[in-house]
Amino acid sequence: MSGKPDLEAGRVELAHGGGGRAMTRLIEELFAAAFDNRWLAAGDDAAAFPAPAGRMVMATDSHVVTPLFFPGGDIGSLAVHGTVNDVAMGGGRPLYLAAGFVLEEGFPLADLRRIVGSMAAASREAEVPVVAGDTKVVERGKADGVYISTTGVGVVPEGVAVGGARARPGDRVLVSGTLGDHGVAILSAREDLGFGTELQSDSAPLHGLVATMLEAAPGVRCLRDPTRGGLAAALHELARHSGVGMRIREADLPVREEVRGACEILGLDPLNVANEGKLVAVCPPDAAPALLAAMGGHPLGRAAAEIGKVTADERGFVEMETAFGGTRLVDWLYGEQLPRIC
Amino acid sequence: MSGKPDLEAGRVELAHGGGGRAMTRLIEELFAAAFDNRWLAAGDDAAAFPAPAGRMVMATDSHVVTPLFFPGGDIGSLAVHGTVNDVAMGGGRPLYLAAGFVLEEGFPLADLRRIVGSMAAASREAEVPVVAGDTKVVERGKADGVYISTTGVGVVPEGVAVGGARARPGDRVLVSGTLGDHGVAILSAREDLGFGTELQSDSAPLHGLVATMLEAAPGVRCLRDPTRGGLAAALHELARHSGVGMRIREADLPVREEVRGACEILGLDPLNVANEGKLVAVCPPDAAPALLAAMGGHPLGRAAAEIGKVTADERGFVEMETAFGGTRLVDWLYGEQLPRIC
Repeated sequence: MSGKPDLEAGRVELAHGGGGRAMTRLIEELFAAAFDNRWLAAGDDAAAFPAPAGRMVMATDSHVVTPLFFPGGDIGSLAVHGTVNDVAMGGGRPLYLAAGFVLEEGFPLADLRRIVGSMAAASREAEVPVVAGDTKVVERGKADGVYISTTGVGVVPEGVAVGGARARPGDRVLVSGTLGDHGVAILSAREDLGFGTELQSDSAPLHGLVATMLEAAPGVRCLRDPTRGGLAAALHELARHSGVGMRIREADLPVREEVRGACEILGLDPLNVANEGKLVAVCPPDAAPALLAAMGGHPLGRAAAEIGKVTADERGFVEMETAFGGTRLVDWLYGEQLPRIC
Repeated sequence: MSGKPDLEAGRVELAHGGGGRAMTRLIEELFAAAFDNRWLAAGDDAAAFPAPAGRMVMATDSHVVTPLFFPGGDIGSLAVHGTVNDVAMGGGRPLYLAAGFVLEEGFPLADLRRIVGSMAAASREAEVPVVAGDTKVVERGKADGVYISTTGVGVVPEGVAVGGARARPGDRVLVSGTLGDHGVAILSAREDLGFGTELQSDSAPLHGLVATMLEAAPGVRCLRDPTRGGLAAALHELARHSGVGMRIREADLPVREEVRGACEILGLDPLNVANEGKLVAVCPPDAAPALLAAMGGHPLGRAAAEIGKVTADERGFVEMETAFGGTRLVDWLYGEQLPRIC
C-alpha cells in the first residue's frame, strides 16, 4: 500500500482526512506508532476493554490553545493532562483516553509528529493509554494548525463521593499549589514578553495527587481544577452549585513572585488566570490537617495551602480578606482575560 | 448572575469560551437545557455513572461536515449518529456520550441552538444521553462555524466478539442498505446541484439494527460502517486487518436510482461515497440467511443484501464481479472524492 507520509518535510493534505490510503497510512505511521497499544493496532473504530467494578466517570475537553508549543508543554501534553484532570476531579482514577484531531490543511507533519509524540509521552507518564482516535482535515484557514478533543473514562474508588454541590458551611478550602502559572506562561509565549524561561506552564496530570488525597481524607467533598477563569471561576462555580459562600484569605494564596510581577505589569489578577496542574479541594474542617499534609507530601502539592473556608451565604458570594486587612468581593468575570488559553 | 445569551439574534463571542459567567450561562441556557439530564445539570467537569458488567467499548469521532445543515440531518444529528455507530460497530450497546464543541466567534447562536437541538433529539431518539461536554471558542476565521467531537462508551453483550481482524475465507459479506446516500446528499446540498429533495442523507443510529443482528446471529465476525471512503474503504480495511481478500458482486449492490444517476453525472463511484446509516457485516456462511432475514425485518435494514464473500488472498485484494460478467479490482483511493463529508 503506497501513500507513506513524509513526516520530516510533508504537510497535512485534505487526503489525510479522506478515509482512503493516505489517512490509513498517516494513522499507522504517526498516531498508532506513537501511542503504540493493542487497541489502536487493531485498527477498529471502537476500543474494547473490561469494565471496571463500581462507578465510572467520563469527561471531555477540546483544546485550542495558542501557541501550540509553550514553555512547560504543548497542545499534545495539555490535551492529556486536561482530560486526565477532569476525570480525577470527578474522583476517578483515569483508565482510558480517546482523542479526536481536527487538522488544518498545510500544517507541517513534523509539528504534528512533535505534538503526537508529546501526547504519547504524557499518556505513558500518566499511565492512561489513548485507545481510540479520529482525524479530520479541514481546508487552509478553517482551523489554526490543530485542535484536539480528548475524552477520558475512569473508575471511582469505593466510598469516594465528590461533586460540586457537596460543599457545606464551615468546610475548608485548599489549593494544591501556586496560582496562575499556566496562563502567564502562555501569554508570555504568545506575546514574546520575555519574562524569561523560569515562567513555565504548570500543566501536569493530577490523578496521582488526587489518589493520595483521597487515601488520606476519603471525606473530601469537592475537587475542581481551576483552568479557564482561574481560581475565582472555580470558587464561584462550587459556591453556586452548593448554595454556599466562600471566604478566602489573600495572604494565604500561593503565587510565584514572577507570576505576581507579570500580572502586575499586564493588569491581570492571578485569581482569574488559568492553571493546568493545580486543584481546589473542599473538605470538612476536621479532615483539613491530614489532607494538607498529604498534599504537601506529593510532588505536585508541595506548595499546597489552606486558603479559606465555606460560608453560609445563599447569595453565593465569594469574598476575600485582603492582605491589608479589608474584605472585597472576588468578581466572577464575564469572559476571560486570555482567550484560547487551553 | 447576568450574561444571559440572546439565542435569537446573538452571536458566539470569545467570552463564551472564557470560563466566566458568559460561558456558564451559555452552557446552562443552551446545552444543559437541550440535553436536559442530571449529569449536565450537576455542572461538574466529569459525569459519574454505574459501570456496566462485562466488556466496554469506547469510540470517538470529530465532525467537520460542510454544509452544517443538509437534507436528512445536520452536524448535530450526525455527531450523535457517527459515534453511536462506531460504538455499535464494536459490538457495543451505546450508553453515554460526551461532546466537545469548537465554536467560531461570530457564529449565530440561533444556528447553534438549532444544531444542539437536533443533537439532543438524536440523543433522545437513540436513548443515549450526552452526559459531559466542553465548549471552546476560537477567533473568526479559525474554524468554520462549529466542529463537534463526540465520544461514546458502550457495553458489549456476553458472547459477542466482533472485530476487523476476524473475517475468514468463505465468510459472507452483507450490507444493510443502499450505498452512497449521505455523500451524494451532502454534495448536492454543497453545490446546490438541484437533484431534488428525494436525495437525503441516510444518517441514522444503527445500534438497534446491530442488536437485532447479534440476536439473530451471535457469530457475526465483523461490523463496520462505511463512512468516509465508502464501501470500498471499509472492505479494504477489513481485508487488510484480517489478512484475507474480498469478492463482491456489482449486480447485488443496492444503490438508489437517483444516487446512481447523480454519481454518473458527477463522475463518482457509489463504492467510494460515504454512508452514515449503513453497515457492512461479515459472518460465517451458515449464519448468513438468518442474519439477512433479521436485517431485512428492521426498519434500517429493509434493503439489506448479501453482496459477496471473503476469499483466501494474502494480498488483501478486493475484487468485484461486474454487471457485465467481468472482474475488476476495487481501488482503495488515496484520499477522498469529497472532503469534509462528515
